[in-house]
Amino acid sequence: MQTLIELGKQAKEVSLQLALLDTTTKNHLLEQMANDLEAQTDAILVANQKDLDRAPEFGISETMLDRLRLTKERVFEMAQGVRQVASLPDPIGEVDKMWKNQDGLMIGQQRVPLGVIGIIYESRPNVTTDAATLCFKTGNAVILRGGKEASHSNQKLVAILQNTLAANGYSPHAIQLITDPSYEVANEFMRLNEYLDVLIPRGGAGLIQRVKTSATVPVIETGTGNNHVYIDAEADLQMALDITFNAKVQRPSVCNAVETLVVHERIAPNFLPAIEKLLTEQKIALRGDEQALKYLTTATLATQEDWETEYLDLILAIKVVSSIEEAIQHINHYNTSHSDAIVTNNYFHSQKFLNEVDSAAVYVNASTRFTDGFVFGFGAEIGISTQKLHARGPMGLNELTSTKYIVYGNGQVRK
Amino acid sequence: MQTLIELGKQAKEVSLQLALLDTTTKNHLLEQMANDLEAQTDAILVANQKDLDRAPEFGISETMLDRLRLTKERVFEMAQGVRQVASLPDPIGEVDKMWKNQDGLMIGQQRVPLGVIGIIYESRPNVTTDAATLCFKTGNAVILRGGKEASHSNQKLVAILQNTLAANGYSPHAIQLITDPSYEVANEFMRLNEYLDVLIPRGGAGLIQRVKTSATVPVIETGTGNNHVYIDAEADLQMALDITFNAKVQRPSVCNAVETLVVHERIAPNFLPAIEKLLTEQKIALRGDEQALKYLTTATLATQEDWETEYLDLILAIKVVSSIEEAIQHINHYNTSHSDAIVTNNYFHSQKFLNEVDSAAVYVNASTRFTDGFVFGFGAEIGISTQKLHARGPMGLNELTSTKYIVYGNGQVRK
Repeated sequence: MQTLIELGKQAKEVSLQLALLDTTTKNHLLEQMANDLEAQTDAILVANQKDLDRAPEFGISETMLDRLRLTKERVFEMAQGVRQVASLPDPIGEVDKMWKNQDGLMIGQQRVPLGVIGIIYESRPNVTTDAATLCFKTGNAVILRGGKEASHSNQKLVAILQNTLAANGYSPHAIQLITDPSYEVANEFMRLNEYLDVLIPRGGAGLIQRVKTSATVPVIETGTGNNHVYIDAEADLQMALDITFNAKVQRPSVCNAVETLVVHERIAPNFLPAIEKLLTEQKIALRGDEQALKYLTTATLATQEDWETEYLDLILAIKVVSSIEEAIQHINHYNTSHSDAIVTNNYFHSQKFLNEVDSAAVYVNASTRFTDGFVFGFGAEIGISTQKLHARGPMGLNELTSTKYIVYGNGQVRK
Repeated sequence: MQTLIELGKQAKEVSLQLALLDTTTKNHLLEQMANDLEAQTDAILVANQKDLDRAPEFGISETMLDRLRLTKERVFEMAQGVRQVASLPDPIGEVDKMWKNQDGLMIGQQRVPLGVIGIIYESRPNVTTDAATLCFKTGNAVILRGGKEASHSNQKLVAILQNTLAANGYSPHAIQLITDPSYEVANEFMRLNEYLDVLIPRGGAGLIQRVKTSATVPVIETGTGNNHVYIDAEADLQMALDITFNAKVQRPSVCNAVETLVVHERIAPNFLPAIEKLLTEQKIALRGDEQALKYLTTATLATQEDWETEYLDLILAIKVVSSIEEAIQHINHYNTSHSDAIVTNNYFHSQKFLNEVDSAAVYVNASTRFTDGFVFGFGAEIGISTQKLHARGPMGLNELTSTKYIVYGNGQVRK
């Protein structure tokens, strides 16, 4: 087993070469990877079966088991995902702006890879091919650290991608996997500043929190979404019902689903009984504040904890407010700065909400479920950043890049 | 004395209001701050004298003492600096791009403040007004933590800025100073994730290193510059002398000065004796590798440590190489990714150097001394980032901002 330092050195070394690969070469290799993944479907499923057989040891839930499971169709989707990455425009080399300064220097800001990216993630094996190929497309070396429950699947997938590289005469160190499942190694990984340029955790709130507090490598926080929909006094009732229903019910387990509904007291008497009917038919449990309980028959009393919780489940907290100011204050206090929406017919309230709510994505009259790199039109998504540094909101290829200044002189010295 | 948590809460709270201030208001307040600083020159000098009197206790060097010292002229320059910040365009609110997605949503990426910025810095009191006003202009709340040797000066300066805010009916919490000089408080500050959006250390390599390894708040690394000038075989001799001389001599104590000269073996016999003559006249000590020593009379043998050191002093290391590839390899191995330059007449070598050297600013035929926010035309500089995340190279106002997606819908739900 290789040490982390070795993996880091290899990644750093290859990253300088990856930065220079032209787009045609990268796309050709990505197409090859997709073909090789498909061609080796059976071997992938054998490896995945080993993980599934071992799953009870780790006591993982039925939902987690479903995320872990690969099928012929899922492997095909993986390969298609890689082809999709190949088809995207390559941001590397773009000069976003160039100007001549007072000294006659031509100064350009050019898009370059970040260098070496670390990804820490949990059970889904499709993150392996997703993350690896997005990093490769943007000229970055990647070091992956997946969950132990998916280790056979991940090792097989990475071996295939590495073989594609080696078979075409490129270093397999562009895509590396940490195979030691220990916490010690994970902690060392998070402090590998000499070799890692950035660390992106993908997974539940527990994982994100652990990385955030342990890492000295720069981290991009992703994912946690304690999201709100605010139904303004002047909302269209049907639209309010549609958006709330969609944001809660369409896919409750994802980070852009709504967790707390904030309702203006003037619309609450009409809106709350109607939304309760729709949601309880879908087995959504309601937790309301005292005001909300006046109009709800199935809800229990919400506690402080409810306002703070990202349920990712069939539960919705409901708070009644007497003004848009109170709504915004509640949202800015409890949200995780992911996605929040207002439903309103009032122009000034729509502007106020957009300006004052401090989130990665703020919506007027649309479901929070749209926060997604594909839906936003980026053609890819490595995660949804909930921090303000470097990237905020859905991260596509551009967010996996940095820049450097290239400066053309003709002998200038500083006076 | 207020606790850090209190400072953090106050900053967070006021940051939401600062984000909404219009440009005219911010500029008016900045002009007022400049006037108030000038008007209180005497009081500032009295406070500064207390720091100067106490300086021997801290055993600080003559150079540091000069950085600490304020004069009537320097206070005027401070005020002028604040007026300059007022005159810059305000990036907040800009929508860099807006598009309609497949669902008919109008999605715009709008520039917003980062929120709460922490600055940790050393002896120069002018950083206090500089950093505070750059953060204010970009709608950020700031918490400053200056060096204990400048504490009286910093407290006076912050009090003046806070009074300007309060006198105009705005919260003084927009600009706060940590007055407890202990390391414990500094360490707590670096882990104040709940309230701080980013931490920017400004100072020597020791400070930067300490922040980098202790902070859990996202950090923007600034400053350390182990920079190189490479003299290619086909360089113009006079240009090579001019650029090397300027990069080393014009201001040796700053982060964009050159520390190691890399010279192609074919030009070394002509170039090295000539540059030695110029540099020794300026009392620059030379440290050469074995090859270099053949052409130098005053140099001592360079050690491994010399390649790794940012001298910030009258010393230059010199390495002779046999190819541009060897030069680039040495540079990428030892540089701190700040500023590196090539002097060459060869087109292909210029392109190769620009593409392959991994630094924030890469120069062809110009001095490394140009890496500077003012010289680049940003009108300001909060520091020079040597990391790849968020900002790289000189940081102006834009680098003190984040973005959020504002999304206009008309009832869309996700299918």
